[in-house]
Amino acid sequence: MDLVAGGRLAAEVTDAGGFGIIGGGYGDEMWLREQFAAAHGARIGVGFITWSLSRQPRLIDVCIEHSPAAIMFSFGDASKHIERTKRAGILAICQVQTVAMAREAVSQGADIIVAQGAEGGGHGVACGTISLVPAVVDAVGEKVPVVAAGGIADGRGFAASLALGASGIVLGTRMYASEEAIGHDDAKRRIVECTGGEQTIRGILFDIARDNVWPAPYTGRVLRNEFSEKWVGRERELFRHLHAERTKYSSARENHDYDTAAVIAGESAALIHEVSPAKLIVGNIVREMDAILGYSLYAKNRTVTSTA
Amino acid sequence: MDLVAGGRLAAEVTDAGGFGIIGGGYGDEMWLREQFAAAHGARIGVGFITWSLSRQPRLIDVCIEHSPAAIMFSFGDASKHIERTKRAGILAICQVQTVAMAREAVSQGADIIVAQGAEGGGHGVACGTISLVPAVVDAVGEKVPVVAAGGIADGRGFAASLALGASGIVLGTRMYASEEAIGHDDAKRRIVECTGGEQTIRGILFDIARDNVWPAPYTGRVLRNEFSEKWVGRERELFRHLHAERTKYSSARENHDYDTAAVIAGESAALIHEVSPAKLIVGNIVREMDAILGYSLYAKNRTVTSTA
Repeated sequence: MDLVAGGRLAAEVTDAGGFGIIGGGYGDEMWLREQFAAAHGARIGVGFITWSLSRQPRLIDVCIEHSPAAIMFSFGDASKHIERTKRAGILAICQVQTVAMAREAVSQGADIIVAQGAEGGGHGVACGTISLVPAVVDAVGEKVPVVAAGGIADGRGFAASLALGASGIVLGTRMYASEEAIGHDDAKRRIVECTGGEQTIRGILFDIARDNVWPAPYTGRVLRNEFSEKWVGRERELFRHLHAERTKYSSARENHDYDTAAVIAGESAALIHEVSPAKLIVGNIVREMDAILGYSLYAKNRTVTSTA
Repeated sequence: MDLVAGGRLAAEVTDAGGFGIIGGGYGDEMWLREQFAAAHGARIGVGFITWSLSRQPRLIDVCIEHSPAAIMFSFGDASKHIERTKRAGILAICQVQTVAMAREAVSQGADIIVAQGAEGGGHGVACGTISLVPAVVDAVGEKVPVVAAGGIADGRGFAASLALGASGIVLGTRMYASEEAIGHDDAKRRIVECTGGEQTIRGILFDIARDNVWPAPYTGRVLRNEFSEKWVGRERELFRHLHAERTKYSSARENHDYDTAAVIAGESAALIHEVSPAKLIVGNIVREMDAILGYSLYAKNRTVTSTA
């Protein structure tokens, strides 16, 4: 949610009863300070792409100045950042994509694990949410809460995640298609128009085009568009025309031309039918989940009460 | 579950309260007759790879002779087979991998839709179960029951699938690791030893090696092994040595050498820790699901009762 989830969106999510997280992405100090300001002191978190943050670790200090409730680390070795974060009394959330990564992050001190399935938009790895979440819960769930991410956009996905053993969910693509997200209206419209997960594609084409190829094993999921359909499976040709294609791609990003520039979104786009205010999205998802699991939750609460 | 789910396994699943399906796969009349005999008249179904069945449509007549409760069609245009099946008073189950395929199968007369996520073992397409199932339910769920497949191996996955709107689940890999499955013990042992979905791989390497490349868009998920790690990303080299590699691969299959021959299994292998009797597997999954959703189901049943 790099540059899409700003302070205003994060504050709205928290105000609706969720926990809003600024998408700090690769890390840009000016943008980060602006977004903290836009959050007006709401209880929020901030997330970073770990391998990029490691090139400018002082951004952690910028965060600490603003006292977020949590800092979230995704993609790469976060051990040093976790230590620094916890020393400041801030929760360290680690997003992982495999059971092995979950064990490592917990051994490094992660307070919360986000298990991200391959359905998710943007960068990730290869395991689907429905198997990954219970496997991660089995591996580390006795030590820390596990939160599900990837492919979730409504109360059914929320209820399913709880059934899988998760303690909560992370919403990416669903919040991109919110009124408060910073993304362009045309990008949000494409998310709404997507009617099936197969209209997204996981790969590194768009990373090649924007001169930003990630370390292995990460690939990225985006909505398919003219660019992806032209070049998928033809990476060798793309490399032959790289200079010209990069220039075109860069210009397309500036001009919000999403036939060429990628809209970074996950398979849950198939479940998103309108751009809505963040509060309405959060409220509806909780209500839908409750309609599915309500009696179970009530039963569990009752058990707790009668034990006390 | 081609050649792995035989009549004995199918009958055990039905006897445990599930619905057992013989994995007819590509279609082999002799094997099919043997498996119907092994099922001893239990109320079961039989499934086929549709594009292969279409080369020998008389296998439908062989099925009809044995009065299965349902015939399941996966991968390809099943319209003619659906018509023939329904005319014989047998239910037509269609397994699909996208929302568009689900709409098409229902328009062709499918009685039940199986929405198969990309986590599943063997052939499939690209969408994860957690987004695909609710999207398919939204598209066709008012007309036919939708059953979830792909990445499900325990009661948490069953409960999650019901929360997503499915009416049931299909278990593949979990039943491969049953005592009654026909698969080799070494193959079952590798499923048990798999500790993470990333230890599986989706692609066509093993289809190339066994001279059985499927029509697009289908790829297959298998457990990673020495063969996959040697050749992945080096398909061009594999083609240069194809004759020798195919001979080796064929011999490895005959000798149950799973360093070379693929074990066809899905990401749910990460959740499977022992080879068990089919009845125990089915019973445990239902109990686990009930422990998660019991009060919800009870509440729904109560509503039905008070309406009556």
